[in-house]
Amino acid sequence: MSFELRVAGSGLDRRYMYQALALSLRAAPWPNPRVGAVLVKDGKIIGTGYHAKRGSPHAEKVAIASVKNKKLLKGSTLYVTLEPCCHEKGMDGKLTPPCVQVIVKSGISRVVIGMKDPNPNVNGKGINALKKAGIDVRAGILEKEISEANKPYLKLTKTKMPYVTLKCAVSLDGKLATQSGDSKWLSSMPSRVHAHRLRAENDAILVGINTVLNDDPQLTTRLAKGRNPIRILLDSRFRVPIGANILKQGNAVVFTTAKSASRFSKKAQKIISQGCNIVTLSGNMAVEGRLSLAAVLKKLPSLGVSTLLVEGGGKTISAFIKQKLADELILFITPWLIGEGGIPFVDFKSAKKLGKSLKLNSLSCTTVGDDVLLRALFR
Amino acid sequence: MSFELRVAGSGLDRRYMYQALALSLRAAPWPNPRVGAVLVKDGKIIGTGYHAKRGSPHAEKVAIASVKNKKLLKGSTLYVTLEPCCHEKGMDGKLTPPCVQVIVKSGISRVVIGMKDPNPNVNGKGINALKKAGIDVRAGILEKEISEANKPYLKLTKTKMPYVTLKCAVSLDGKLATQSGDSKWLSSMPSRVHAHRLRAENDAILVGINTVLNDDPQLTTRLAKGRNPIRILLDSRFRVPIGANILKQGNAVVFTTAKSASRFSKKAQKIISQGCNIVTLSGNMAVEGRLSLAAVLKKLPSLGVSTLLVEGGGKTISAFIKQKLADELILFITPWLIGEGGIPFVDFKSAKKLGKSLKLNSLSCTTVGDDVLLRALFR
Repeated sequence: MSFELRVAGSGLDRRYMYQALALSLRAAPWPNPRVGAVLVKDGKIIGTGYHAKRGSPHAEKVAIASVKNKKLLKGSTLYVTLEPCCHEKGMDGKLTPPCVQVIVKSGISRVVIGMKDPNPNVNGKGINALKKAGIDVRAGILEKEISEANKPYLKLTKTKMPYVTLKCAVSLDGKLATQSGDSKWLSSMPSRVHAHRLRAENDAILVGINTVLNDDPQLTTRLAKGRNPIRILLDSRFRVPIGANILKQGNAVVFTTAKSASRFSKKAQKIISQGCNIVTLSGNMAVEGRLSLAAVLKKLPSLGVSTLLVEGGGKTISAFIKQKLADELILFITPWLIGEGGIPFVDFKSAKKLGKSLKLNSLSCTTVGDDVLLRALFR
Repeated sequence: MSFELRVAGSGLDRRYMYQALALSLRAAPWPNPRVGAVLVKDGKIIGTGYHAKRGSPHAEKVAIASVKNKKLLKGSTLYVTLEPCCHEKGMDGKLTPPCVQVIVKSGISRVVIGMKDPNPNVNGKGINALKKAGIDVRAGILEKEISEANKPYLKLTKTKMPYVTLKCAVSLDGKLATQSGDSKWLSSMPSRVHAHRLRAENDAILVGINTVLNDDPQLTTRLAKGRNPIRILLDSRFRVPIGANILKQGNAVVFTTAKSASRFSKKAQKIISQGCNIVTLSGNMAVEGRLSLAAVLKKLPSLGVSTLLVEGGGKTISAFIKQKLADELILFITPWLIGEGGIPFVDFKSAKKLGKSLKLNSLSCTTVGDDVLLRALFR
C-alpha cells in the first residue's frame, strides 16, 4: 500500500474506500450485500452512509441524504464499495428504486467503486449508466477485501445456496466425543460463548436428527447477545419428538422425506402449531429416502437464509464435506486427548495417497479460553 | 506491572530483573540453567553479564568483571535471575568456584534474586550465605517468567530426566498419514524449516525403529542454522540397518535390549566405528524385551542431553504420552482432511468418560506457512 499512497490519486481512493468498507461492516442486510459509501469534496468527507437492512435505503442514498448543504454535492466524489444498482424496484424482489438516477441527479461528478455487482441485473450496467451520464468512474478498488466481507452475498448470487460454515469442537486428536459419546465440557466456557456468537451471526443453524435424539439441544443464542437463528433439522424419517427443545421457540424447520410428515398428520399439525415449518422433499431432492443436502441448501434462501451454521454431529458434518457443500470450517481445538475409538469429526475413508485427500486453505488460528479456534476455507 | 511501578523500589526491581532475564536468554548452557545479571549503582547500569556456556564464568562474575571502575561496585545492587551458587568446584560436577564469595568481596551491598536454585547443593544456602555476610537480599522477582525460561533445568534437577517435547505434523483430523502411510508434503515448507529449528534447539532427537525402517530419515538440522542434535534411536530388537541415514553423521545412540548388540558383534562394531554409540538396557530397564522409556530418559543426561525432541512415529509418541513422560506437545496442524483409516498420532484406547481422558494445558497457537503450530503442556 505504501507504493499506492505515493501515487496520489490512487492512494487517496484506497483510503476513502477503506472508510466505505468500514462503514459497510456496520450492517448485515443479508441476503443483500454489505455496502458502505463516503462522499468527498475538496479533500473533505461531506457525507457517509451504509445499507442498514433489507428494504432500507441503499448506502449511496443515505450518504447523499446525510449532506445538509446540497450545494456541496456538485463536483463531489462518491466512494461506494459495490457497483450502484440500476434496475427497477420489483425486479428480483428488489424493494428500492435504482441508485444510479439519484447519483446522476445529485451533481456528483466522480464515482469510485469497490467491486462490480455480480447480480446479473446490475453486473456492469450500473457502471455503464454512470459513464453514459458523463460521470467519471473508477472501479475495482479493494476488491479482495470487499469480496471477503461479502462472501455470503457472492455465494448466494452465484449458486443460489447459502454460505455454509461447519463448526465443531474437537480434541487434539480430532475426536468429537469419547467412545461412549461423552463430550460434555470438552470445550471451555469462552468457546461456548463464541459458538453462541456464531449462532447470532448466522441466519440459520442446522443439525441432524441424531443430535436432537441424543442431546436434545435448544440451538438458541443464549450465552451471547443477538438474535436466535432459524433452526434447521435434517430428519429424513420424521423421527423428531414433538417435545424436542429445537421446536420449542418456534421458527424451526424440519426437512424430511417421510410421507407421514404430511401437514394433515397429527404430529405435523402439532409441530406447525408451535410456529415451526415442515418441508417434505421428494423426487430427486431425496436420494434413496435420504435428504439431498444440495436440495436442502437450495430451499434455504426462500426461507430467508443466506448464511448457515452446521453444528454437527459427525455424520452431518462429514456429509457436507463429502458432498463439497461447505465453504468454511471452524474447529474449536480443545486440550483433550481422547484416543482411538473416540467419535471422529470426519467419518469418510482415508484415501491411499495424500494427494487424493481433501485439502483446505487459508488456515488461521487464535486462542479462545483454554481452546484454540482454527478457521479454514474449503476450496 | 503499572501498579508495581508506582511502588518505587519494587517496580524498579522488576524492571532490572527483566533486563537480567533478557540477558539470560542469550545463552543456552544446558544442562546448566540460563542466568543473567545486571549491576546497578545510583540508578545507572554499571555492568551486565550472562552465563554463556557450561564451564564458562557464571553471570554474576561476568557482570562484576564488566565493571571497569571497580570503585563503583561498593554499595551497588546486583540483579541476578537465579540464586548465586555457594558450593565448591567439583561438587555435582561443577566446573566453577562459588559466586557468593566473589559477590561479598566485591562490595556489592544488595542482591535481588529472581528464583531460588532448586539444586539441593544451593537451594537457599546461597541466600543465607549472602545474608550472613551482611548483604541485603530480596528473592522471588519474576519467578514465573524465569522458571519458564529454565524449564529444562528445573525438570532435570527435579527428575534427573531431560525435558521432553513431542513434535508431529497432523491433518485437521489428527492423522499422521493416510491409510497406506503416505505423509509426504503433509506440512508446508515453513513448518519443515521450523521443525529443523526445533532440532537445533534441542540437545537430542529421538525416533522409534519403525520410522528408520519406513522413512530412513537423516534427522539432522539442514533447513535451519544450528547444531545437529544427538540422534537417539529406540530399537529394542537391534534391527537398524548398518547403512541407515541416522547413523551416517556419527553422534547417534542406539538404545536396544538385544544381546546381539554386544560390542563384540560385527554389526555393533561397524556402528561404533561410524562414531555412534550403542546402549544395551536389561533387567528392569527393559520390560518384556521392550525398552523402558523412563530408563532411556534417565540415561540421557549422562550423554549430555537435557532437552529431547521426540519426532515419532505414532507408536513412539503414544508411548511417551501413555507413560506420562512428556512435558510439551508441538503439533503442526496442516490443512488436510485424511479421514478414517489414516494413521492416528495417538493410538491408545479412548476412555468412556471425557473426565477420564488426558487433558493438556496452556494451549497456544500461531500460523506457520500454510499450517497452524499448536503448543500445549502436559500437566
